[in-house]
Amino acid sequence: MISREQHNRMANAIRFLSMDAVQKANSGHPGLPMGAADIATVLFTRYLKFDPKQPLWADRDRFVLSAGHGSMLLYSLLYLTGYEDMTIEDIKQFRQIGAKTAGHPEYGHASGIETTTGPLGQGIANAVGMAIAERKLNDEFGADLQNHYTYVLCGDGCLMEGISQEAISLAGHLKLNKLVVFWDDNDITIDGHVGVADSTDQHARFRACGWNTIAVDGHNPDEIAAAIETAQKSDKPTMIACKTIIGFGAPTKQGTHNVHGAPLGAEEIAAARKQLNWDSEPFVVPADVLDAWRAAGTRSAKARSDWEARLAAADTAKKSEFTRRFAGKLPEGFGAAISAYKQKLADEKPTVATRKASENALEVVNGVVPETIGGSADLTGSNNTKTSQTKSITPTDFSGRYMHWGVREHGMAAAMNGMALHGGLIPYSGGFLIFSDYCRPSIRLASLMGIRVIHVLTHDSIGLGEDGPTHQPVEQMAALRAIPNLMMFRPADATETAECWQIALETQDRPSGIALTRQNLMAVRTEMSEKNLCALGAYELVAAKDAKVSIFASGSEVEIAVLAARALTDKGIAARVVSVPCFELFAEQPEDYRKAVIGNAAVKIGVEAAIRQGWDEIIGSHGTFIGMKSFGASGPYKELYKHFGITVDAVVAAAEARV
Amino acid sequence: MISREQHNRMANAIRFLSMDAVQKANSGHPGLPMGAADIATVLFTRYLKFDPKQPLWADRDRFVLSAGHGSMLLYSLLYLTGYEDMTIEDIKQFRQIGAKTAGHPEYGHASGIETTTGPLGQGIANAVGMAIAERKLNDEFGADLQNHYTYVLCGDGCLMEGISQEAISLAGHLKLNKLVVFWDDNDITIDGHVGVADSTDQHARFRACGWNTIAVDGHNPDEIAAAIETAQKSDKPTMIACKTIIGFGAPTKQGTHNVHGAPLGAEEIAAARKQLNWDSEPFVVPADVLDAWRAAGTRSAKARSDWEARLAAADTAKKSEFTRRFAGKLPEGFGAAISAYKQKLADEKPTVATRKASENALEVVNGVVPETIGGSADLTGSNNTKTSQTKSITPTDFSGRYMHWGVREHGMAAAMNGMALHGGLIPYSGGFLIFSDYCRPSIRLASLMGIRVIHVLTHDSIGLGEDGPTHQPVEQMAALRAIPNLMMFRPADATETAECWQIALETQDRPSGIALTRQNLMAVRTEMSEKNLCALGAYELVAAKDAKVSIFASGSEVEIAVLAARALTDKGIAARVVSVPCFELFAEQPEDYRKAVIGNAAVKIGVEAAIRQGWDEIIGSHGTFIGMKSFGASGPYKELYKHFGITVDAVVAAAEARV
Repeated sequence: MISREQHNRMANAIRFLSMDAVQKANSGHPGLPMGAADIATVLFTRYLKFDPKQPLWADRDRFVLSAGHGSMLLYSLLYLTGYEDMTIEDIKQFRQIGAKTAGHPEYGHASGIETTTGPLGQGIANAVGMAIAERKLNDEFGADLQNHYTYVLCGDGCLMEGISQEAISLAGHLKLNKLVVFWDDNDITIDGHVGVADSTDQHARFRACGWNTIAVDGHNPDEIAAAIETAQKSDKPTMIACKTIIGFGAPTKQGTHNVHGAPLGAEEIAAARKQLNWDSEPFVVPADVLDAWRAAGTRSAKARSDWEARLAAADTAKKSEFTRRFAGKLPEGFGAAISAYKQKLADEKPTVATRKASENALEVVNGVVPETIGGSADLTGSNNTKTSQTKSITPTDFSGRYMHWGVREHGMAAAMNGMALHGGLIPYSGGFLIFSDYCRPSIRLASLMGIRVIHVLTHDSIGLGEDGPTHQPVEQMAALRAIPNLMMFRPADATETAECWQIALETQDRPSGIALTRQNLMAVRTEMSEKNLCALGAYELVAAKDAKVSIFASGSEVEIAVLAARALTDKGIAARVVSVPCFELFAEQPEDYRKAVIGNAAVKIGVEAAIRQGWDEIIGSHGTFIGMKSFGASGPYKELYKHFGITVDAVVAAAEARV
Repeated sequence: MISREQHNRMANAIRFLSMDAVQKANSGHPGLPMGAADIATVLFTRYLKFDPKQPLWADRDRFVLSAGHGSMLLYSLLYLTGYEDMTIEDIKQFRQIGAKTAGHPEYGHASGIETTTGPLGQGIANAVGMAIAERKLNDEFGADLQNHYTYVLCGDGCLMEGISQEAISLAGHLKLNKLVVFWDDNDITIDGHVGVADSTDQHARFRACGWNTIAVDGHNPDEIAAAIETAQKSDKPTMIACKTIIGFGAPTKQGTHNVHGAPLGAEEIAAARKQLNWDSEPFVVPADVLDAWRAAGTRSAKARSDWEARLAAADTAKKSEFTRRFAGKLPEGFGAAISAYKQKLADEKPTVATRKASENALEVVNGVVPETIGGSADLTGSNNTKTSQTKSITPTDFSGRYMHWGVREHGMAAAMNGMALHGGLIPYSGGFLIFSDYCRPSIRLASLMGIRVIHVLTHDSIGLGEDGPTHQPVEQMAALRAIPNLMMFRPADATETAECWQIALETQDRPSGIALTRQNLMAVRTEMSEKNLCALGAYELVAAKDAKVSIFASGSEVEIAVLAARALTDKGIAARVVSVPCFELFAEQPEDYRKAVIGNAAVKIGVEAAIRQGWDEIIGSHGTFIGMKSFGASGPYKELYKHFGITVDAVVAAAEARV
């Protein structure tokens, strides 16, 4: 049992590491780590199931610092509890280039950082995804192997962001009772008192969404502990409102927004040392305190070895499946299934909308990859994301494989990040491409973290027709291609759709988006290729000897390109076609390949029912682009293509004008 | 007084216009107009203050159809109440190219469409902005001239979107008691029963945010009327939960998601005609019903003429100010004030961060333009958006000119759209450029609508330093430049910042974003120019005879370009510099000007601390680009510039390697 005095000294270790690191960096946020140190100390010394020696233990509790600006809280905890890759030297390097201890917690920089946070509200939604993953895997593998809590620390900022509502309402709906949110209820935001901008009764709001709520003094370890124990027994998710003083311990600045995001200054830190009776030098933790922390870090070692014993004792199939899942490897047979499916498509050459082709591909995928979890933001029938294998997950039954995310694109994308981070599952979403704008911050974070989430983005152009410009993406492909590390696919037919799915699934360390049509498309890939041509990013689909014209296109416009090339050839103008399903992968090909695909034809034409931005890297700034220059319009889609001049005739005319 | 039977027939007119128009278009959403027809009929025939003969009457009540897919509800109401530019022919053209009656309501297509809706949750947040504008102008001009309600009709989808929470919590905080939200509580979403994805107690949630809530039978006109009257007397915003049957009147399909987004079919419509005892042909409204509706449309004519009399009787200064405001014209003297300020800058040549330069420009702007309303999403001290003139607006005092939006970027942007749509005010925001991702859907809608909102977007590159990649925009400039009609500015110094502000304010029909630095920049514009050079989009900043090298840059990298040009000139390599504060405006210049600015130098180099995407249109695909190829990193900003190779030396080396 940790005495109150010992608790205080342990919490103060966090406070001084945080103050001193921020001061040394001359940059950072001391207020949250100082205010929330007591909460974190209670959680990490008494409840959190974790083992610094095995940071990736699949059944560890997850801890998410949603208020990511308080990163020094997390770095302090990792150092103090004995994570080997977080040394005092790392703490001293806070916020320096190349340091593990970046300004905000960066997933992958050091063990124990469960997710990248900083953009507010993301962490709490990540945690909802982690908690869903836990319930799902608990159902599948049993409590012996999956039975852990997910804890979140968030601030007022997280709760003001709209994404928090999507996350909270979803968690309450699903009765994620192993999810516990600590609200660092310190009354302070950057602009001053929270009351300057918000008067929400957070308890009532959470309860309206199906949560328990508990209010505690966030500096009273016993109250915090009692609340955690109550939460652990709950049949609902629990929000523990911890009334804290931001910057607790800074004699003149605590309780004000001045401690939020700036170093306290040498004088204030010296005064804090006096006030908290802390006589260690900066970055020196007294031996007794460090010992106590390190002991806390070994607290779950037996639980972990017991778990390992249970895994070892599990039957072979279960053990190997569980291990495979958490290693992120696809099942054997996946490649063969895709190959067989591609052969079928080459034989049948279906005319089909790519959203439907995606459903057909998923029917194959979901049959051989049991870890996929599909879903849609209330557009299931439009996104074609549900297959015969994917029963719906409900609050009382997690044996399904399909999430009805509700009209919550942002919460969906962020929760999917949490599911992927948790491990054991591969989430794919369903939404309209236009509404990628609603979840862009989470797609960006998936790209930054390098995690495997897959976004199914249907209705990918003016081809959706009558719903009009509010629903017609014209700049979304460009805007998503702009995000580093994201693979944005726009397949041209059923075969390319299958190939894009294969790449998205086989790539463990990057997210994908797959843009799909509402309208039917002819098969442009008519011969079987064992090789995944989409993995090249772009490839020659129609060759032509001594081509005078090269036509480059993606998705639904490849059909136009192929028909235009035929028409030109009929007119004696040799024209080739290059399909460009993925700009990012094409940019990563060897220069020789890129040059060969781009080719030497004097006339280069790009065709995409979207804006030109980005296409110059393929067609050159002197290339001709047939696409959109404005927002779309409401009307039948074939008329829209004519109205905006994206037609076979337009491509032919453009080519003829230039050869 | 309208009898119940008459009410029913009037509501059924909406139902049949909607059914028939969707059927004729073979596309659309009949469910909402049929379900919400009773609510709309009560509101429009008994409470809404509007005059179809004067659709822009400044003191009209605003009606926002947040559930924009139910557009036929609105079009029906506009036709029935007698808006002259909404004819039965327009209704027959539903969802055809060029029609006023687009798939979703499009602002500007026809009178009475107060905002463009469709992307869920936007309308309710627009309405919050309209209600803020009303309170603000009421405070400023008195209840004689501004005293109206804002009504919203939203569905479950709107309430599941996170943006709704931002809007609701803000409205409750500000006690916007003239805001009334009708929740079309029909239990149905596209994926089926709402309960598939959500269990939120919406009454409790709204009350937690400071609202009144009332539950009514949404097909009982008396209950609806009583609720509206209660709401009108409230000291809080009110949510009226109207329990409705989606697709009310469709005998076999009502109450299911099958009526949501597809034509009912001829058979079902015929059966509905029987069930509702409606024997008119499609698009024919019985004369008595049309007469009753047209009478409802004249209901507020006297209120309008009384209002006009009050305006006419107001003192000259007040009358002319009010009229000027609603005409969207800037005050006389604005140009002169900017000019004087630019002269001061030319004399002083300050080294200053552009976020601070923006504050200084705003100090001038806010001194002469009383209709600006500033604000920040809880980053006031970082965004530098508050000036000496902008006292904070509070729940009890709307005499201020500054909004503490809270950590609600999306709600802020959407509410700003509502303020601009309302008229009389020019809203400008404050946020980090990275978090434009959080409000991108609303920025897009501002661009689509062509309204004057101005986004101040600070911390615009890796130049923000230690906060790291989660906070460093690398792709946001490209992604925002991708949005049609949006002017994205990235000024290079204080003078350019002033010029960008001038353009943003003087352009009535487009939104703007102004990307600004955290770090200090030297003055690159050292001579006074009466002409607004930024209005050209790009211009030659440093000329060079027989230039071998042209360096193009924006914002903070213009300084680098200028220093590199000097270094090259010192080495005998003539180099010129082009500043590119706004891609969109440059793209709109005459071809001659564009060619002259791009110039003939063999070596073209672009410099921007962001990705290349989009730059090829200026430097060509063979140009050299010095910028970012990945996410950023956490560290001191000068070190980051070195780390990522965005330096004077790098530009010089790149030029030397190619001349």
